[in-house]
Amino acid sequence: MLLCDIGNTSYHFLNENSNYKENVETFNPQTIKGIVYFISVNAEVKKKLDSLENWIDLAAFLDKSSYYETMGIDRIFAVEALQNAVVVDAGSAITVDVVKDGVFMGGFIYPGLKAMSETYSNISPALDYEFNFELDNKELPKNSQDAISYGFLMTFHREVLSYKMPIVLTGGDASKFKKIFHNAKIDDELIFSGMKKILKNIK
Amino acid sequence: MLLCDIGNTSYHFLNENSNYKENVETFNPQTIKGIVYFISVNAEVKKKLDSLENWIDLAAFLDKSSYYETMGIDRIFAVEALQNAVVVDAGSAITVDVVKDGVFMGGFIYPGLKAMSETYSNISPALDYEFNFELDNKELPKNSQDAISYGFLMTFHREVLSYKMPIVLTGGDASKFKKIFHNAKIDDELIFSGMKKILKNIK
Repeated sequence: MLLCDIGNTSYHFLNENSNYKENVETFNPQTIKGIVYFISVNAEVKKKLDSLENWIDLAAFLDKSSYYETMGIDRIFAVEALQNAVVVDAGSAITVDVVKDGVFMGGFIYPGLKAMSETYSNISPALDYEFNFELDNKELPKNSQDAISYGFLMTFHREVLSYKMPIVLTGGDASKFKKIFHNAKIDDELIFSGMKKILKNIK
Repeated sequence: MLLCDIGNTSYHFLNENSNYKENVETFNPQTIKGIVYFISVNAEVKKKLDSLENWIDLAAFLDKSSYYETMGIDRIFAVEALQNAVVVDAGSAITVDVVKDGVFMGGFIYPGLKAMSETYSNISPALDYEFNFELDNKELPKNSQDAISYGFLMTFHREVLSYKMPIVLTGGDASKFKKIFHNAKIDDELIFSGMKKILKNIK
């Protein structure tokens, strides 16, 4: 069985043994002859796949009534994988979604690490620092690097902890955010777990 | 007596009757013949004023030992004006500074409204929404506009409220932030109050 989670830049595959990525620009989906169960936030790729019989869009088998129309399908499948958790998907944007007893409670979107770094340096060269993930959140900063790091990370940290639920980190920057969410669990295959669950329901 | 707070884009003056602004690019400080007490975050303008005898830099009369070297002089003078408060200066960046019993406790820097709006729309056209300042912060969002508004505003809101101190809003976007900080006081002349206090000490 082959699963594929398609983003804006890559096809992320999972087979029985491993997960691997292919570039959206260069990969030709017709090279795969077997069945592929996929989800895609990438509208262009999705359109291309609609004409391939062996690529099956799992989004069609989902009960979307608990979610909202413009919510990314990757967020939905991550939520589907869990019963009680805060999902923090740290990519180009950071999505935070709360699921209680298997029901989606809502979520919010925060700018990702790279975007936020550019934001500060664009406001002023005086704010062009790397973020300090080793920040002590007990005291308010008294230097510029920590002042912007606190602005980006500690406001976010306080918000996410306020839900008092287990935190699951996924996405490209998950390991960086683990430095501020010490008790969080990293799950790189969270979306695939959601896909497997939906697949089990329809089989 | 004429006071002037100089930023990156304008000279902000206060005389006995009113406050008004002049553009940094077009205003010639030599046109003023009387004494002007000023502060400036604008290094270029400051350099120009150093050669004018009637322009007196109040930064020189400040005890800077409680502050840090790269802290903007406008933030310092805003803090000097208060005894117990959180100062939220909402400009191109939003600076948040805490002062307890007249002592600066530290602060952080968050991106301003315009910068943050651009950040979201640069990440994806799907995140290109106006911020909703009427957001209900009791529930997690279930639509895209509120999801980004919550990410920008409610994380920040929770952080600032956590200090449990009176909130003073200043800066160009103060009235917008008043919509989420209902009990905050807006003070457009906060930095001038700090300047007056320092001036009283040296006279």
